[in-house]
Amino acid sequence: MNIETIHGLEEFDIDRRIIRWIMKRAGNPRISIRLWNGDHFWVTEERPVACMEFRSRRALLDVVLSPSVGFGECYSNELIEIHGDFLAFVNEITAAATRKVNGQYYGPKVGSMLCAMLGTSLARSWQNVHHHYDLGNEFYKLWLDERMVYTCAYFDPPSASLAEAQLAKLDHVCRKLSLRPGQKVIEAGCGWGALAMHMAEHYGVEVIAYNNSDEQVNFAKETAAVRKLDGRVTFIKDDYRNINERCDAFVSVGMLEHVGLADFKTMGAVIKRNLKPDGIGLIHSIGRSHPKKADPWIRKHIFPGGHMPSLSEMMSVFEPHRFSIIDIENLRPHYAQTCEMWLKNFETVADEVSNLYGEDFVRMWRLYLAGSAAGFRSGTLQLYQVLFTQHGNNKAPWTRKYQYLSEPRIH
Amino acid sequence: MNIETIHGLEEFDIDRRIIRWIMKRAGNPRISIRLWNGDHFWVTEERPVACMEFRSRRALLDVVLSPSVGFGECYSNELIEIHGDFLAFVNEITAAATRKVNGQYYGPKVGSMLCAMLGTSLARSWQNVHHHYDLGNEFYKLWLDERMVYTCAYFDPPSASLAEAQLAKLDHVCRKLSLRPGQKVIEAGCGWGALAMHMAEHYGVEVIAYNNSDEQVNFAKETAAVRKLDGRVTFIKDDYRNINERCDAFVSVGMLEHVGLADFKTMGAVIKRNLKPDGIGLIHSIGRSHPKKADPWIRKHIFPGGHMPSLSEMMSVFEPHRFSIIDIENLRPHYAQTCEMWLKNFETVADEVSNLYGEDFVRMWRLYLAGSAAGFRSGTLQLYQVLFTQHGNNKAPWTRKYQYLSEPRIH
Repeated sequence: MNIETIHGLEEFDIDRRIIRWIMKRAGNPRISIRLWNGDHFWVTEERPVACMEFRSRRALLDVVLSPSVGFGECYSNELIEIHGDFLAFVNEITAAATRKVNGQYYGPKVGSMLCAMLGTSLARSWQNVHHHYDLGNEFYKLWLDERMVYTCAYFDPPSASLAEAQLAKLDHVCRKLSLRPGQKVIEAGCGWGALAMHMAEHYGVEVIAYNNSDEQVNFAKETAAVRKLDGRVTFIKDDYRNINERCDAFVSVGMLEHVGLADFKTMGAVIKRNLKPDGIGLIHSIGRSHPKKADPWIRKHIFPGGHMPSLSEMMSVFEPHRFSIIDIENLRPHYAQTCEMWLKNFETVADEVSNLYGEDFVRMWRLYLAGSAAGFRSGTLQLYQVLFTQHGNNKAPWTRKYQYLSEPRIH
Repeated sequence: MNIETIHGLEEFDIDRRIIRWIMKRAGNPRISIRLWNGDHFWVTEERPVACMEFRSRRALLDVVLSPSVGFGECYSNELIEIHGDFLAFVNEITAAATRKVNGQYYGPKVGSMLCAMLGTSLARSWQNVHHHYDLGNEFYKLWLDERMVYTCAYFDPPSASLAEAQLAKLDHVCRKLSLRPGQKVIEAGCGWGALAMHMAEHYGVEVIAYNNSDEQVNFAKETAAVRKLDGRVTFIKDDYRNINERCDAFVSVGMLEHVGLADFKTMGAVIKRNLKPDGIGLIHSIGRSHPKKADPWIRKHIFPGGHMPSLSEMMSVFEPHRFSIIDIENLRPHYAQTCEMWLKNFETVADEVSNLYGEDFVRMWRLYLAGSAAGFRSGTLQLYQVLFTQHGNNKAPWTRKYQYLSEPRIH
């Protein structure tokens, strides 16, 4: 700082210095900044990938006071505007933040373990689920695939369409579980029922599927009736903690993120008491490469009560009950591509969504979908599929060839 | 306990009560007990799988005072004899102990985390390795496969011979790493060099392989010269912590067990600084389904300083450095079969080993090999292969088909 700056301090200079401070804290992303007065500049030497416009000084201060929530809310409320490719912008700020790593580990890990040990009852579970999933089936129908699958797809080949990749994911999960006709399968957190119905229809198993969301369970029941699967799939609106059914396979896709670290051990206990000694289970969840709390804006506006675990945290589901982990696969790039496709679909219906829910809702969801895509692309987020058995089960497959070589569908 | 027993207390009764106490603590295994006075009885209602003979009261007391070390040492010294199938006996006592589970988790976990955080320097590393691996190459040659591979084999198909399964394991590791000709590979803990030479010969890579054991490194160098691979494989007798070579792939098979929990983070740091940003790594290690210290007898006589980590403990290698875990496979049944085959080979040369090293050594090794087989068979021990990349590497394979479908060997 030179004397001239201090003495000649103008309103303009303060703003610039705040911007410089924000940019430094953000890892100096290659973006340009435009202020409410039209001034336009950038900090890095490289060409900016997009321009972030602060439309008022209030927006600037909101971002200083609370970088994540402040930015998210100001973007939703149009106090901040992004000019250029929105996804490229989000990818760049995510990548810049990722480059700026501090290497802290045991501090967050101690906190995470304390949290997992304390095991508070999540009285808010239902409200949390309601917040996100009862927005209305119509909303999700607008931009999800035809089966309404709202979890990571499996792009094999990478050029697959979203619908093909979601179908491939369902089969990938079923293959991993080595489902055989006549088996009983429990699904915890079944969304709109796509996996449950797919298992019953193509693998000949009986499925009991749980979900806390009214809207989703009603939709799933209706769909199962239309597809004449209601004799083989039972959808139950209840908490996973109330599951009490002996099963050959236990599967949960995209629910653990909502369980909260404090209830991981409980989740394991539920599986322990329901899974037969020679049964097999699969948990599919967003995760991290190291323990870290969810982004504050995501916690406030998108997933209250959620936690995306690192693998060591995730082990709080399994290790207290001595499950044997037999296979873990990370589908991170698949989820990046899934989110990018959702975002693309979402943009084609943005006007319609804006009419139904308002423009601030559109902007919030745009930021959420782009932020998720960027998180998976940069490695801030991971997607783990964990396959496990009860302790000492020697009937699990010897190699993983069966996941790739066989054609397990019965019809 | 009835009054008659207390009043009519004979020497004989005290022994029986001690036996009953031992058997209860051991989870009541289906074995019979023979005492030095010829008395023979069993506690369970089921038919005993084998008979354990205490040849003196001292043996009985040793087992009471220190179940694991006492039993191990008395068996080695022939104060305890096992009549019947030795492996069946060890499998039964392991399974009985496993059935008796107490569900404790967070206590051991806190201890394990403290240990990982403290990060003491393992000054004893070299002595520890020397203890086990410098017994003499001649000893291991007697019962290992022709390539001298002393880690879990990969039985594909399950009927494969030991030599075939060890070869399949080497290829399984190479496939997972997607080795391409011209790449540089670092191996930490290379044993007698089988994997290093296999990678160089069949995958066209340059290998730098580290090992702390003089005997092994000398053997590996000689073998490489005979096979004319010494231009492509460099064997270095040094600690893994001194590795300083940028590489495309980092591989360590069967070394992490000897590193000790306190140095897991250091192990991760070594990989972090050596692995290129788009490189890939594999760590293959014995592990557990939950945090637990190594058996005291194993620590005292077989692997001083070793620790077999649960997956949450193993994450102390990766999470502090934000590696991305892309794939974990558990080869537990393969290691049970490997140990059973080693034991079978060992028994065929037991007389020869006895002449070279003494009968107590033979009995110690029989117990170690049978105990390991039983540990993997029962689920007390696991075998994890962990595949990982640096944070945010988007060049890793999208699916795991490449591990099963391709023929990656170049010759």
